[in-house]
Amino acid sequence: MASRTVAQTTVMFVPTLLQCRSPRREPTMLTLPLVQANFRSNPYQPVGDFLSNVSNFKIIESTLREGEQFANAYFDTETKIKIAKALDAFGVDYIELTSPAASEQSRKDCEAICKLGLKAKILTHVRCDMRDARMAVETGVDGLDVVIGTSSFLREHSHGKDMAYIEKTAIEVIEYVKSQGLEVRFSSEDSFRSDLVDLLSLYRAVDKVGVHRVGIADTVGCASPRQVYDLVRTLRGVVSCDIETHFHNDTGCSIANAYCALEAGATHIDTSVLGIGERNGITPLGGLMARMVVTSPDYVKSKYKLHMIKEIEDMVAEAVQVNTPFNNPITGFCAFTHKAGIHAKAILNNPSTYEILNPADFGLTRYVHFASRLTGWNAVKTRVGQLGLIMTDDQVKEVTAKIKTLADVRPIAIDDADSIIRSFHLTLHEQPSTNGKAETVLVTNDETVTIANGA
Amino acid sequence: MASRTVAQTTVMFVPTLLQCRSPRREPTMLTLPLVQANFRSNPYQPVGDFLSNVSNFKIIESTLREGEQFANAYFDTETKIKIAKALDAFGVDYIELTSPAASEQSRKDCEAICKLGLKAKILTHVRCDMRDARMAVETGVDGLDVVIGTSSFLREHSHGKDMAYIEKTAIEVIEYVKSQGLEVRFSSEDSFRSDLVDLLSLYRAVDKVGVHRVGIADTVGCASPRQVYDLVRTLRGVVSCDIETHFHNDTGCSIANAYCALEAGATHIDTSVLGIGERNGITPLGGLMARMVVTSPDYVKSKYKLHMIKEIEDMVAEAVQVNTPFNNPITGFCAFTHKAGIHAKAILNNPSTYEILNPADFGLTRYVHFASRLTGWNAVKTRVGQLGLIMTDDQVKEVTAKIKTLADVRPIAIDDADSIIRSFHLTLHEQPSTNGKAETVLVTNDETVTIANGA
Repeated sequence: MASRTVAQTTVMFVPTLLQCRSPRREPTMLTLPLVQANFRSNPYQPVGDFLSNVSNFKIIESTLREGEQFANAYFDTETKIKIAKALDAFGVDYIELTSPAASEQSRKDCEAICKLGLKAKILTHVRCDMRDARMAVETGVDGLDVVIGTSSFLREHSHGKDMAYIEKTAIEVIEYVKSQGLEVRFSSEDSFRSDLVDLLSLYRAVDKVGVHRVGIADTVGCASPRQVYDLVRTLRGVVSCDIETHFHNDTGCSIANAYCALEAGATHIDTSVLGIGERNGITPLGGLMARMVVTSPDYVKSKYKLHMIKEIEDMVAEAVQVNTPFNNPITGFCAFTHKAGIHAKAILNNPSTYEILNPADFGLTRYVHFASRLTGWNAVKTRVGQLGLIMTDDQVKEVTAKIKTLADVRPIAIDDADSIIRSFHLTLHEQPSTNGKAETVLVTNDETVTIANGA
Repeated sequence: MASRTVAQTTVMFVPTLLQCRSPRREPTMLTLPLVQANFRSNPYQPVGDFLSNVSNFKIIESTLREGEQFANAYFDTETKIKIAKALDAFGVDYIELTSPAASEQSRKDCEAICKLGLKAKILTHVRCDMRDARMAVETGVDGLDVVIGTSSFLREHSHGKDMAYIEKTAIEVIEYVKSQGLEVRFSSEDSFRSDLVDLLSLYRAVDKVGVHRVGIADTVGCASPRQVYDLVRTLRGVVSCDIETHFHNDTGCSIANAYCALEAGATHIDTSVLGIGERNGITPLGGLMARMVVTSPDYVKSKYKLHMIKEIEDMVAEAVQVNTPFNNPITGFCAFTHKAGIHAKAILNNPSTYEILNPADFGLTRYVHFASRLTGWNAVKTRVGQLGLIMTDDQVKEVTAKIKTLADVRPIAIDDADSIIRSFHLTLHEQPSTNGKAETVLVTNDETVTIANGA
């Protein structure tokens, strides 16, 4: 299905050091169409593997649960509903909510979201405890995500229960939730620091009583990609139910770990918008989309509304009062900005040379930076064309040298570079023929000039 | 070597939604010592592997090369020198600089940094071209990082050269650099979209003429961790020289990919401070340290000055006018903040329960959030103690319910929660004995109150 698509390329209107203090500001832009490479034969798609679910996975979106554990988060009912509706429109498979046992308002919000009639299934995340489970079932959710700590760290310092007690309680809770006709997931907490045999025994036991999903959680963010692959692959051989995974980002591996979990046969990935959660959070929804659309473009593009990512991230960033990180996948202000001369030249020929993601898929635009000492004459040549000016390649090379000389002394703005180009062009046309045409050329593309000033 | 260390835990003084708009603000803090778990038998350390270099790797720090390609970057000579000195003090093995061929000032800066007499070796990054190589050698650098695009994308749309030409030029440049007594690395660009056989043939040829390192570069950020492992492991069987790796972060895998490269036998990792570089950048220095200190605490702590990470990141963030991302590994404002009741309880018993990184290793502090509806009575109990108040567990549970009720209606500040605790405590002491002692207790810990207000 992934045949030729037309990408929009914007050249030159990069917010520079002088102009753009806030990464949030979006420069106005002028676009020119470029043909994106044909992705039909994707050369970097992994070799097929019967275990892999990279082209067939589900998202459990936990902004309204894990995200509520983010230091800055306080979501009132209205905000929760707005976020839930946006996530549903985006296409997430599940929306996970804070336990109704956490507070009275949490319980009411859970009920309110269940009544919205969203396409996404509504889950709530509860401790492995009959009281919590009963309260959750009464809210009207589609399913329960049940959790208990299984590592020696948590068994000793948190709940103090042994594995026999955990298994007995787990089965009781699972059978109760199933008897109420709801979906139920059972997850360990801190799975990567739990005893492997304990973990597998427990999961086999809950699989036998018909749990819908078991969960692997890297609660402390210690897991590395190949550890994840090994544990999930081992678990895949032990249980027949679905496998959900949850990765914290303390060591920066949450997206990669989610990817490796899918490669090993996991079926569900927990995410939150911008990755917000305890400490520095979990697998971010947008970052996971960046990873997955490269590997499985057809599946991802047909299922999820990628152009909504920026809008949803902005909504959540506003609600928890943070800025989108400057280097965020997809929506970071520089994610599609190309600067070095050699990159700019190739991008202008074919964006696939230095771009694995197509900004058009996300409703975004690429930029080519030309006002710096790292610029090359190919970028300047395109800019000359955008300004409606005509120069030979040798003349472009000459004016490029002038731009680099100024940019070598201080950071320069687009206006500075444009002035150099215009003034150089004026000189060229004044010498051979002084019939006043130069001035006409300078103002032909007045719209472009305005746009450049607004960048 | 990693025996018991004393961690500093700060309880309660979390900047809340009401108080902290800017993630950069550091709350003043009160600390209490807690004993960190003994890491001598690290349960999540990967099983030993003869290929792995996770406990023996070198950093090629490229903030002054790749980082200069970041959209906002303009480093004047003074800033370059400041950054180079800080990176040297931190302990990076190499510092990579922009090619002297990029501009006249780039050439002068290269010479200036070579003359600083740093412990780190100075490299410059040049195209595979004799003119560039000669200019680089004359600056006084210790080595050259030579690069050329080998993917069909780049061969077609960038330089237009075939593999035979690339190999011939590579050997000429390598032999020249070696004849000048300098170190030389040869790297392909866009290695993961290059033909595997072409790549291995080329690397074998340059290895035979004695190149010091070959480089694998994920120039577009498309590689996944297990692809990286496979390619580096294959290459490890083909060449005898060192293997450097360079990972872009477009799909959020740059830290994980670096880690997997080391597992497969790579020897050198390219980083930049905060990951700045083309588009959304490369493996960040701080994030890589977070990943590696979990796996190889002794090696990392003995070699790199981890407590300098925040200072270096702040310096670079200031220079390129961005904010440290709220969720940055280690230095994000919430990286060591615990909020949910169940997390807070366990953290207060033993930080290792929910923390894989020890904030004390980075000269930082952990926070436990208690002013939210997700709080638990264990966190509130600790806060009661910090305020110098005495309550029974039942009384703490009662006041916790009051805090959760208010926090359920609106986001609350530390002051709000403290007022509830104080007012509740006053009532307790007014009833049994009205001797005026309550007021004395309330003000005993005046410093704490001031600190809480300043948070």
